[in-house]
Amino acid sequence: MKTGRADLPLITLLTDFGTADYFVGAVKGAILSVNPRVVIADITHEIPPQDVEAAAFTLVASYQTFPAGTIHVAVVDPGVGSARRAIVVSAGKQFFVGPDNGIFTYIYDRHPSHRAFHVTKEKYFRRPTSTTFHGRDIFAPVAAALSTGVKPEKFGDLITDAVRVKTSLLPVVQKNGRIEGRIIHIDRFGNCVTNLTPDLLGHDGVLLVKGKQVREFRDFYGEADSADKLFAIWGSAGFLEISVNGGSAAKILRAKRGDTVTLE
Amino acid sequence: MKTGRADLPLITLLTDFGTADYFVGAVKGAILSVNPRVVIADITHEIPPQDVEAAAFTLVASYQTFPAGTIHVAVVDPGVGSARRAIVVSAGKQFFVGPDNGIFTYIYDRHPSHRAFHVTKEKYFRRPTSTTFHGRDIFAPVAAALSTGVKPEKFGDLITDAVRVKTSLLPVVQKNGRIEGRIIHIDRFGNCVTNLTPDLLGHDGVLLVKGKQVREFRDFYGEADSADKLFAIWGSAGFLEISVNGGSAAKILRAKRGDTVTLE
Amino acid sequence: MKTGRADLPLITLLTDFGTADYFVGAVKGAILSVNPRVVIADITHEIPPQDVEAAAFTLVASYQTFPAGTIHVAVVDPGVGSARRAIVVSAGKQFFVGPDNGIFTYIYDRHPSHRAFHVTKEKYFRRPTSTTFHGRDIFAPVAAALSTGVKPEKFGDLITDAVRVKTSLLPVVQKNGRIEGRIIHIDRFGNCVTNLTPDLLGHDGVLLVKGKQVREFRDFYGEADSADKLFAIWGSAGFLEISVNGGSAAKILRAKRGDTVTLE
Repeated sequence: MKTGRADLPLITLLTDFGTADYFVGAVKGAILSVNPRVVIADITHEIPPQDVEAAAFTLVASYQTFPAGTIHVAVVDPGVGSARRAIVVSAGKQFFVGPDNGIFTYIYDRHPSHRAFHVTKEKYFRRPTSTTFHGRDIFAPVAAALSTGVKPEKFGDLITDAVRVKTSLLPVVQKNGRIEGRIIHIDRFGNCVTNLTPDLLGHDGVLLVKGKQVREFRDFYGEADSADKLFAIWGSAGFLEISVNGGSAAKILRAKRGDTVTLE
Repeated sequence: MKTGRADLPLITLLTDFGTADYFVGAVKGAILSVNPRVVIADITHEIPPQDVEAAAFTLVASYQTFPAGTIHVAVVDPGVGSARRAIVVSAGKQFFVGPDNGIFTYIYDRHPSHRAFHVTKEKYFRRPTSTTFHGRDIFAPVAAALSTGVKPEKFGDLITDAVRVKTSLLPVVQKNGRIEGRIIHIDRFGNCVTNLTPDLLGHDGVLLVKGKQVREFRDFYGEADSADKLFAIWGSAGFLEISVNGGSAAKILRAKRGDTVTLE
Repeated sequence: MKTGRADLPLITLLTDFGTADYFVGAVKGAILSVNPRVVIADITHEIPPQDVEAAAFTLVASYQTFPAGTIHVAVVDPGVGSARRAIVVSAGKQFFVGPDNGIFTYIYDRHPSHRAFHVTKEKYFRRPTSTTFHGRDIFAPVAAALSTGVKPEKFGDLITDAVRVKTSLLPVVQKNGRIEGRIIHIDRFGNCVTNLTPDLLGHDGVLLVKGKQVREFRDFYGEADSADKLFAIWGSAGFLEISVNGGSAAKILRAKRGDTVTLE
């Protein structure tokens, strides 16, 4: 049976390559040389250089809207050329291709029945294979091979010890009932995305962040009020966010990723 | 009769999401989940945050090159989640999907026979529908539904009171014959795009801007002269622009969008 | 015989338009209006304004991964509207469309049997044809016409005097055996790409750059050491690069494009 995507397979790209260099173009060419029918969708190429954790968050915040069968190539790869493994992951009816450095940690968390394979079959690699640009020479052609119907187990052995980033999307529930979370992302608009989720709390807690209290929980940004009034809102990535109306909550709070957020 | 695009419908994206966050990826996935055959073309995601007027200009400067049947999704949406309406507009054989906040003002001006519909039929929305990210949950799936052939009137009632931005692309002709225009956009190269159009003037006026006179009207940039010599030129968006050769007219003039330009 | 791309032709874009303006959207629309089946791949739009040499490097570093039949549109065009010619180049089973200002110099070097044609047949131009935006009005529709099967010789006369940039990708071998090269690109990560190639040297030279010696040649970035230890590495564009581990070699060296690199 053919799926809707069978004749136009979809590959997304998520990297720290920036958009000013030749890197993204080279990756696209390497994919289309293997399978000219692939549709390529850029998620972002602006992950801060070598920031694996930021890539992991951005992937988990966007992959779910893509259709079954989508192949996500995620390359933030400070260990390129070293002993770190290349992997293909099958999870939630989608595929993930990239370095085994923790970039897929939150995908593993969301899909406990995922399978990860160590990519070793060099016949799928681009030749010559550089030691500095596996995005072009390994991840791109492997993703393109997947798009032609090659099964993930064909690329190498199943592994059960995939690398994870140290941080977690799960907040800590303390003995006294307090919930201790973190700011896991600050977006373009200055919204501070926390790792607090709806199942953990109601609408009436008090949030402590950077020495300030946030008592108001809102349903949307657009209510009129002063430009420095902080409030909490359920954000589009599925997490509680700290925001202000028409301004940057991150600037007001001098917040950065990793800062603690406590819910009483 | 099938058009050339019938099997590969085209959706463009124009937003203030930036390209560093998960927003653009999430929108693309939401479109492709509804219709995997859509071709997505990014116009820009670098509209200054919440600058509806800049989005309106950028759209009107680019939509005309696209083929009939193109669906433009434009999302600069400070009022997301509030009472502001979502709309679908049919104009000039193309479609426009976005918030009813004036973002399509100049499209209305160019196509007096346009029709706008208030999007209310929730069966076309993505579920669950967030209150903070209608780009992903309403505009993307509605555009994708349009791409499958759903008629614009199917999304909700026709409206005749669509919101407009306050500014106009039309300059003011004063009693003394002077024409008073505005700088409506400053581009990457520092060219100052005005709202003066060819039908309003010949090639021999004197332009007054920021206390300086511009007397020379040119046909192209590339004539050799000093790097601070200002001249006027008919720009590619259909408007008179103020430029210098190999430099930034905006920097020389200390000009910003909204500044007055007078033609004597 | 139809190739794999016959029904989904591929056009890449490489420009200095930036991604904030309407330029890129207008070019995409102009292509898709002529041929709605084209797949468009952005290489970059972030070439520094009017930097023809940077565009020439980025193109030569990325075009080779693309499949046969790919059409590359490269527009960095300070002379737009002047007497500079528009050209179509056939080289290495691919096509190149852009201004005749040297942007394809390194493609000529790599493919001595290339053919270049002066684009003069106005029937392939977009109407009206502006004097300031040939990317939209000439290069886009000419590329789209190529994608429908129009032969390159149909656009105008063969030329043999195509313009070249003054710089070369070839280093100079001096009488004393020293090889004098240049930094030809600095990438996002601060790696300094030189024009030294593997055929010119072994793995045991000493590199002199900005008053410093670089003695170590490596196979990949990821070895653990101090963050200011410079080393040389064969980069993914096929050239020797000067790098540091987890930092910016360009910053440490205060290097800029054009700086001399000597190999002893």
